[in-house]
Amino acid sequence: MTAASVDALVVTALPNILYLTNFGGSAAIVVIDRERIRFITDSRYVAAVTAMQHAAHACPGLEIVTVGGSYDATLADVLLQGSVQGGACLVGFEAAHLTVSRYDWLTATLSAAKWTGTLLPTQDLIEKPRVIKDAYELAMLREGGRRLSAVAREVFGLVRAGRREQEIAADIDWQIRRAGFSRPAFETIVASGPNSALPHARPGERTLGEGDLVVLDFGGVYESYCVDLTRTVVVGRASDRARDVHQAVLTAQREAIARVGPGVSRFDIDGAARAALARVGFGEAFGHGTGHGLGIEIHEDPRVVQRKAGVDVRDEAVEVGMVFTIEPGAYFPGWGGVRIEDDVVVTGQGGELLTSVPTDLLVV
Amino acid sequence: MTAASVDALVVTALPNILYLTNFGGSAAIVVIDRERIRFITDSRYVAAVTAMQHAAHACPGLEIVTVGGSYDATLADVLLQGSVQGGACLVGFEAAHLTVSRYDWLTATLSAAKWTGTLLPTQDLIEKPRVIKDAYELAMLREGGRRLSAVAREVFGLVRAGRREQEIAADIDWQIRRAGFSRPAFETIVASGPNSALPHARPGERTLGEGDLVVLDFGGVYESYCVDLTRTVVVGRASDRARDVHQAVLTAQREAIARVGPGVSRFDIDGAARAALARVGFGEAFGHGTGHGLGIEIHEDPRVVQRKAGVDVRDEAVEVGMVFTIEPGAYFPGWGGVRIEDDVVVTGQGGELLTSVPTDLLVV
Repeated sequence: MTAASVDALVVTALPNILYLTNFGGSAAIVVIDRERIRFITDSRYVAAVTAMQHAAHACPGLEIVTVGGSYDATLADVLLQGSVQGGACLVGFEAAHLTVSRYDWLTATLSAAKWTGTLLPTQDLIEKPRVIKDAYELAMLREGGRRLSAVAREVFGLVRAGRREQEIAADIDWQIRRAGFSRPAFETIVASGPNSALPHARPGERTLGEGDLVVLDFGGVYESYCVDLTRTVVVGRASDRARDVHQAVLTAQREAIARVGPGVSRFDIDGAARAALARVGFGEAFGHGTGHGLGIEIHEDPRVVQRKAGVDVRDEAVEVGMVFTIEPGAYFPGWGGVRIEDDVVVTGQGGELLTSVPTDLLVV
Repeated sequence: MTAASVDALVVTALPNILYLTNFGGSAAIVVIDRERIRFITDSRYVAAVTAMQHAAHACPGLEIVTVGGSYDATLADVLLQGSVQGGACLVGFEAAHLTVSRYDWLTATLSAAKWTGTLLPTQDLIEKPRVIKDAYELAMLREGGRRLSAVAREVFGLVRAGRREQEIAADIDWQIRRAGFSRPAFETIVASGPNSALPHARPGERTLGEGDLVVLDFGGVYESYCVDLTRTVVVGRASDRARDVHQAVLTAQREAIARVGPGVSRFDIDGAARAALARVGFGEAFGHGTGHGLGIEIHEDPRVVQRKAGVDVRDEAVEVGMVFTIEPGAYFPGWGGVRIEDDVVVTGQGGELLTSVPTDLLVV
């Protein structure tokens, strides 16, 4: 807040609110100034927040404000009470999370009430520290990775000819929940045969058949932290082409992981995967980025992607405590595709895998 | 668009994009003018969108634009090409969905490139028609309601003493998927004993015991449309107090449903539930609204809530084709709570239930 020259900060992004306060519900606004943390929520959550404040990880000094009319009207009241520093204060807001209509309503309301403060757009004030995971967060991510790896080993047994993609996806989600995750981290992908060529396929009615490649991409939320894993298996018998593509993607993934270390450019980590695939003629078959950060959200910084026009080039080097996926793939429309994904934390020594599941092409 | 005096509209809200184009992926921007519909997406989705355009419900005249650098840079290019009407055009954007930072970036970029158009905030241009469901949408919602009711009947068998909330929630989600839903519509609630007093409890480690009230609140997404249902059961033996509270909530729910009809105020439907609970002294125990619209999103207009300060009072009367939940509850901190929820469509005759599951207090 000092660096951004604001006296107070209005936090509206729920993942940022969770990071600051442990609140995992669906509606809240936090107002921080140099002395207080005001937590605005509605009657549905007051009991839960009060209980949360008696738990081990309580956020010190949280003052609960219950919503009267609407959230934004309550926020305006809090700002107008002048209790934020009083007088001509500068109040930051999260420009990447507040919509134009909420901003317009808030400025109109405050100005009509002769508010003497000023709203200032801020960028990434809470996201920035979130990128480097602390010891508690790493412990949760490691435990999540361990549990997700155990789920993966169960999952291979669910894949066989004659079963439908949706059926397998439902079973995977059940395994995720049984493993102690509060929920799947995203919509589980089971993409078989030609569908495996679609990186973001949704599980459908298709029945698995002999020779199908099957991309299995799933994750879980463990104690509010997301982990993510992909393996590609083959049903019945692997063709030479399937083995070649799988081997190429695996090599790309291993080379990118080997590249991870403090101070290394995220573009170079992506480049390692891309070069390995290009070497065997599959450069064009890899259309997405190599990885994404993960934590409270399934997609966070750092983005391990190609350096090109339109890509944000700030914060290029990865640092100790960053956690991200490494998930190259190769996709051939009409035929199929392969993706292999693990989660990595940057340590002083290089990249430590959070997930550990065999990477050979498994024939199920 | 004519009413809003815009020559073109930039649609960034994904549920609105799904409504217009059938695209269910996680990233796209649509630009509509009087002649064309430009659909901006990235390489991950191009194959899926091309396939979608060959399906029965294709959106006529969709022109696919593949993202070069970033989505917003591609959007700026589309606007700058002048292909939107050319010259000094007025381009609407969705103020409730575009963030301040995207808006600021876009205006700065367009102005640096000497764009001659103007960006205008618009409100609810696509949300408005979405509130009235057409015949296709009602068919999906009715089928969803039928399937969710079948799931509910299975679910009662999963609830018994000795099982953990999370375990039951995982089983419910599996049943939802097996019933043909693409996913649960929200995080399934299994709230037992004192947890049942928290309207938005998350399933946790608690083991169900004799005499517990258990709130079971779950939903599914069927062909992109959400349905939602809640029943409260009791484990082993129901106390007199549990029976009284359940009966009071059931009466409130039935009276609110009986009130539904074209032209009726949504505040009066809420009032019917509230009055029934107040009559037996439980007015204070009902802290949330009576219902919410549902469709492509699990929470849409109309909001069936109390008329009070800070509540948007526009569009008061419900109309034929609107679909919403009726879900009053009564919550007693430390003791427990009851909620009963069904989905209703407004017809010429009144309210038609989409869900049909016994409402008696079930002892499991």
